[in-house]
Amino acid sequence: MRVRVLGAAAGGGLPQWNCGCERCRMCRRGDPHIRARTQDSIAVQAGGCAGWVLVHASPDVLRQIEATPDLHPRGRRHTPIEAIVLANGDLDHVLGLFCLRESQPLSIHATSAVRAGIVERNVIARTLDRFPGHTVWRDLPLGVEAPLLGPAGEATGLCVTAFPVPGKVPVHLAGDAPSAEDNVGLRLRERPGGPELLLMTAVARVPDEPIRAAVLLFDGTFWQDDELGCMGLGEATARDMAHVPIGGPEGSLARLAAADVPRRIYTHINNSNPILVEGSAERRAVLDAGWEIAEDGMEITL
Amino acid sequence: MRVRVLGAAAGGGLPQWNCGCERCRMCRRGDPHIRARTQDSIAVQAGGCAGWVLVHASPDVLRQIEATPDLHPRGRRHTPIEAIVLANGDLDHVLGLFCLRESQPLSIHATSAVRAGIVERNVIARTLDRFPGHTVWRDLPLGVEAPLLGPAGEATGLCVTAFPVPGKVPVHLAGDAPSAEDNVGLRLRERPGGPELLLMTAVARVPDEPIRAAVLLFDGTFWQDDELGCMGLGEATARDMAHVPIGGPEGSLARLAAADVPRRIYTHINNSNPILVEGSAERRAVLDAGWEIAEDGMEITL
Repeated sequence: MRVRVLGAAAGGGLPQWNCGCERCRMCRRGDPHIRARTQDSIAVQAGGCAGWVLVHASPDVLRQIEATPDLHPRGRRHTPIEAIVLANGDLDHVLGLFCLRESQPLSIHATSAVRAGIVERNVIARTLDRFPGHTVWRDLPLGVEAPLLGPAGEATGLCVTAFPVPGKVPVHLAGDAPSAEDNVGLRLRERPGGPELLLMTAVARVPDEPIRAAVLLFDGTFWQDDELGCMGLGEATARDMAHVPIGGPEGSLARLAAADVPRRIYTHINNSNPILVEGSAERRAVLDAGWEIAEDGMEITL
Repeated sequence: MRVRVLGAAAGGGLPQWNCGCERCRMCRRGDPHIRARTQDSIAVQAGGCAGWVLVHASPDVLRQIEATPDLHPRGRRHTPIEAIVLANGDLDHVLGLFCLRESQPLSIHATSAVRAGIVERNVIARTLDRFPGHTVWRDLPLGVEAPLLGPAGEATGLCVTAFPVPGKVPVHLAGDAPSAEDNVGLRLRERPGGPELLLMTAVARVPDEPIRAAVLLFDGTFWQDDELGCMGLGEATARDMAHVPIGGPEGSLARLAAADVPRRIYTHINNSNPILVEGSAERRAVLDAGWEIAEDGMEITL
């Protein structure tokens, strides 16, 4: 199984269009201590298969595809992207669907709550439903392994198990009754017993259950709870935004120290997070604890 | 008045994510006879003013802003983009609004039909309405000159006159009753009597009324009516998609030959259009007739 990180930033990306913080300015001036990142998404390919599965459809999906030759079309009208999986309905994870509207058949795996929030409440979703079979929405059941399939039911060689993760409804659905289907973790593998990729990129608190996987991609949005306030970038805390911070006694670095995960990687990193900067104490702490820090273009093989 | 072309491609851009036509492949292999282009948008700045006005919010708006230092923030949370003008509700012209959702006050000028199609029928529009004053929608009346204003009513130094142009409702609103407000041309200037920029980037047929302006940016989507069919890229004709072709006896090149426009520029160019390719007969015909062909980053001063 091959994994390619298409984007490793939280919503807004790095640099963020309306942000003049030190990190964003470092990116814009080409400082070698930081790398620009697009919004959170990965592509996954099963061994021996030609197609790819996208996890999330970020607002940056078009430039992410162009930056990734493996995802370029191999015919006059074609895409090697056979399926898309959505872990929640946050705009930084789904807006890119509407960029993929050029009459290409799509297969989208999502929970019914996430699907309904997109399809039933946005007239622009009709752009993905222009002809019979344009978009096939496939239900992502909780706690049951399901094959990831292409638009016509083609096997991608990958299976997924979705499970509820503490999170929140998308900002634009604030006030809706919360559901266990709003925000899920994803466990991907090729076959029973094969190595597993575990994705948890929006996590309000570290679950008490033990975490096991060959590779873990985990929520690295914030280093500390009051990070935005300390930098003068906003009033919301990490927990207000349903992201467990990395640092601190209840942070993911401490809470996951004993997890049975040979390879652990922080992603979905906000532009405010000091782990982005080469040489920072926080980056050093994360690396010293055996974590990696995702960046666009990173390749992972399981 | 300064104009910067942020994107000169039609919907989908060049290369287009699922297109393997010769033009898109030339772009991907770095052929010097063609230049990649993002989706149709321009930025306009009045003389002596610091702010900018965007015309359209394309799905590529984030990378367009990053590619344009004039549009970078000048403070911790800031944008020099003071207003956005929408000429229609096509997704390639409005989807970028949802990329600009980081709690930055926005001022959006649009007809009531375009506004309603976005705000009243898409729950994701709430992401632009998170706090009082987050987004100010300003009505774009037909045939009446109006000042372009920032979120708090700040003068941008620019005025706009919108006028109906033959077009169509967006694909996702197909079946809705058409309105003169669905698709408009825009006439921008700094002051009465000043030089005018005329934008008509989605035009189903050339109007019979004489066209006058200092600079015209005109619909260059297709060279010929059956272009997509001839290239094996689809069945729709240019006219089906409400774009008058450039070539032919009823095309814009012939119909606008006598227009009183010192500087005329084709933009919103589809990846199927041969005028994109240096050395093509069609490109030569357009240039010989005194037209320019827009590309990303092009600067125009009026």
